[in-house]
Amino acid sequence: MKNLIVQKYGGTSVGDIDRIKNVAKRVIKTKESGNNVVVVVSAMGDTTDDLVKMAYKINENPHKREMDMLLSTGEQISIALLAMAIQSMGQDVISLTGAQCGILTSSRHSKAKIDAINTERIEKELKAGKIVIVAGFQGINKDLDITTLGRGGSDTTAVALAAALKADKCQIFTDVDGVYTADPRIVPSAKKINSISYDEVLELAALGAKVLHPRSVEMAGRFNVALEVRSSFNDNEGTIIGEVNKMEKVLIRGISLDENIAKISVMEVPDKPGIAFNLFSLLARADIHVDMIVQNVNRNNVNDITFTVALDELQTAVDIAQKFAFEVGAEKVEYDKGVAKLSVVGTGVVANAEVASKFFESLYEIGVNIQMISTSEIKISCIINKDKGKEAMKHIHEKFDM
Amino acid sequence: MKNLIVQKYGGTSVGDIDRIKNVAKRVIKTKESGNNVVVVVSAMGDTTDDLVKMAYKINENPHKREMDMLLSTGEQISIALLAMAIQSMGQDVISLTGAQCGILTSSRHSKAKIDAINTERIEKELKAGKIVIVAGFQGINKDLDITTLGRGGSDTTAVALAAALKADKCQIFTDVDGVYTADPRIVPSAKKINSISYDEVLELAALGAKVLHPRSVEMAGRFNVALEVRSSFNDNEGTIIGEVNKMEKVLIRGISLDENIAKISVMEVPDKPGIAFNLFSLLARADIHVDMIVQNVNRNNVNDITFTVALDELQTAVDIAQKFAFEVGAEKVEYDKGVAKLSVVGTGVVANAEVASKFFESLYEIGVNIQMISTSEIKISCIINKDKGKEAMKHIHEKFDM
Repeated sequence: MKNLIVQKYGGTSVGDIDRIKNVAKRVIKTKESGNNVVVVVSAMGDTTDDLVKMAYKINENPHKREMDMLLSTGEQISIALLAMAIQSMGQDVISLTGAQCGILTSSRHSKAKIDAINTERIEKELKAGKIVIVAGFQGINKDLDITTLGRGGSDTTAVALAAALKADKCQIFTDVDGVYTADPRIVPSAKKINSISYDEVLELAALGAKVLHPRSVEMAGRFNVALEVRSSFNDNEGTIIGEVNKMEKVLIRGISLDENIAKISVMEVPDKPGIAFNLFSLLARADIHVDMIVQNVNRNNVNDITFTVALDELQTAVDIAQKFAFEVGAEKVEYDKGVAKLSVVGTGVVANAEVASKFFESLYEIGVNIQMISTSEIKISCIINKDKGKEAMKHIHEKFDM
Repeated sequence: MKNLIVQKYGGTSVGDIDRIKNVAKRVIKTKESGNNVVVVVSAMGDTTDDLVKMAYKINENPHKREMDMLLSTGEQISIALLAMAIQSMGQDVISLTGAQCGILTSSRHSKAKIDAINTERIEKELKAGKIVIVAGFQGINKDLDITTLGRGGSDTTAVALAAALKADKCQIFTDVDGVYTADPRIVPSAKKINSISYDEVLELAALGAKVLHPRSVEMAGRFNVALEVRSSFNDNEGTIIGEVNKMEKVLIRGISLDENIAKISVMEVPDKPGIAFNLFSLLARADIHVDMIVQNVNRNNVNDITFTVALDELQTAVDIAQKFAFEVGAEKVEYDKGVAKLSVVGTGVVANAEVASKFFESLYEIGVNIQMISTSEIKISCIINKDKGKEAMKHIHEKFDM
């Protein structure tokens, strides 16, 4: 039986007519190598942004259902054009919207979750020998309303289809060659990683290495989908993401730097049980993701609570923190945009105490002060001064000899 | 119970953001006057043309299924934006694609016919007090594939919905004030017609008065839908199309000039039974619509067959006629692009012999030669020299004192 490969091409890969033709050639090559192929595509280049701008000119606060109705056209245009390109090269092909290929989602417009995929139509078309082109990022709810999946939507569509169709491989084509030990724009000596575990890439992704959205990696891990990240602009081997053989475990897999964060401190909060919980439940209710949290017990039964949030959620978070501070009688709220999070990721990181000490020592060597520290099973993160972020990343990449 | 009004706005009426906002105001006004409102919209301005151009850059002969997939996004964008505009003005509204509002069509992509409309969803939304915005020009076939209705598609959607929902009125908003006695750009003294029958407007439409596509008028007549054509740019009363009270019957309703035609003659065709039929069945098979036909019996048992076709089908028609002429041993094929069809339309036209003679006399007065004549129940058409078309139209409009 033929192998089934799910490929996903992002917005830059289908950004103009020539690129669409290139993607068509790549898809046909995969098909002609004896595989069945399902292709998930995003909207062309800036299409989505243009539609969003148009919407906001009409309504500053458009309903999310109508926004999904609007934005889903972007992917629908891409699938039709890619299908036409493939047809012009003589291959049998069919394009399917999220609704047509049975991607059933929750009703939460703009952030829908995939509940199930009814693969009947796709399987029928594959059986008929066709290449199947699927609109990423979109689905349909039980009322037949069009939904979109939110951030990382097309990657999620691809992984979900690969899982539902029990595909042999899910290839995510993007504008980089794969997952690197560090951002090559900052660390020129960074190396492409050949294979990496779901957890590791999840930490790297969550930390700002934007090759794959964490949501799709989590799903791939859960359904054990063999993922490959590679470039749509060349034929270089990409990075394989899957269960990594424990015997090959390496100490550090990569370093990442997230500069899109800010630090907020609520100073001199009275030390009563449950107070910190109050603050963070208020933030959670406003859909603000709090990352690192540090609480310093001070003299006089007052605490300083410090936490980090994404830069674009700073304003809302500060407003909430200030209201909270006033209500509990804390002294004041301070915030700092000049911070960055530097992390080392790898399955050996925590087990091996040497990694942490080498990490901290490297920062000390170049005079970088550590403001906050957090660790997980496979990563160590430090909040440092943003101005020193890139220098520190380069220095550590060198120290760990990656 | 509230009246139900179906309104249709064409591509120019929703051509940009300001126009979409204007349409929103009009829709809300209709709703606030105590009606339920279903609104059918076309794609914005040049959207469809832009998509078609993009498609042909990718594939010179794109499959029609994929073309429908592509083009249907145009209307989907319009409905979402119009819904957002209406929401921003505080009204409850929902947009529906052809698929979502149950417009079931045949599978003939790019020229699908509406088989049935499942009005359940629309009725549910109307009951909930919402304005319902429907994507014109599109439907869905039994395989859930998106289809488009071809020419006049959005008008047809509006009339079909009005029929299925038993609406009290179907208003077609366009860029002219209504149906005129003649094209006001050619005949400045032309007057707007207040009310006209389905048949009359059908003849006028088929003859080149482009306010309404014949297909939608036919359907309106069949289901007795009260139609109104009016401008989306002002508040002028439009033209009512419906069953006209016989007592008010007028002699001539309007004059129309169709310059987009050409005349083809096959000379000296052997006079054998069925020969003309052969030619016209060949043309029909090539989807070429033949309008007027004249056959002159010559000396020597040979006939000249002359017919007219649309200008853009001339080349194909001539090719077919030439092949036919060669096979049956006719002498030659001639064609003439320099012709136009001038018609007078009205329920009294044929019953009253005076109309025809006055028509022919008027043409004689200004030295216009009549090349072909045809009549129907409610019209008389003459093929004349194209150069004289506009002058003849003005002269006749004056002679009949319209």
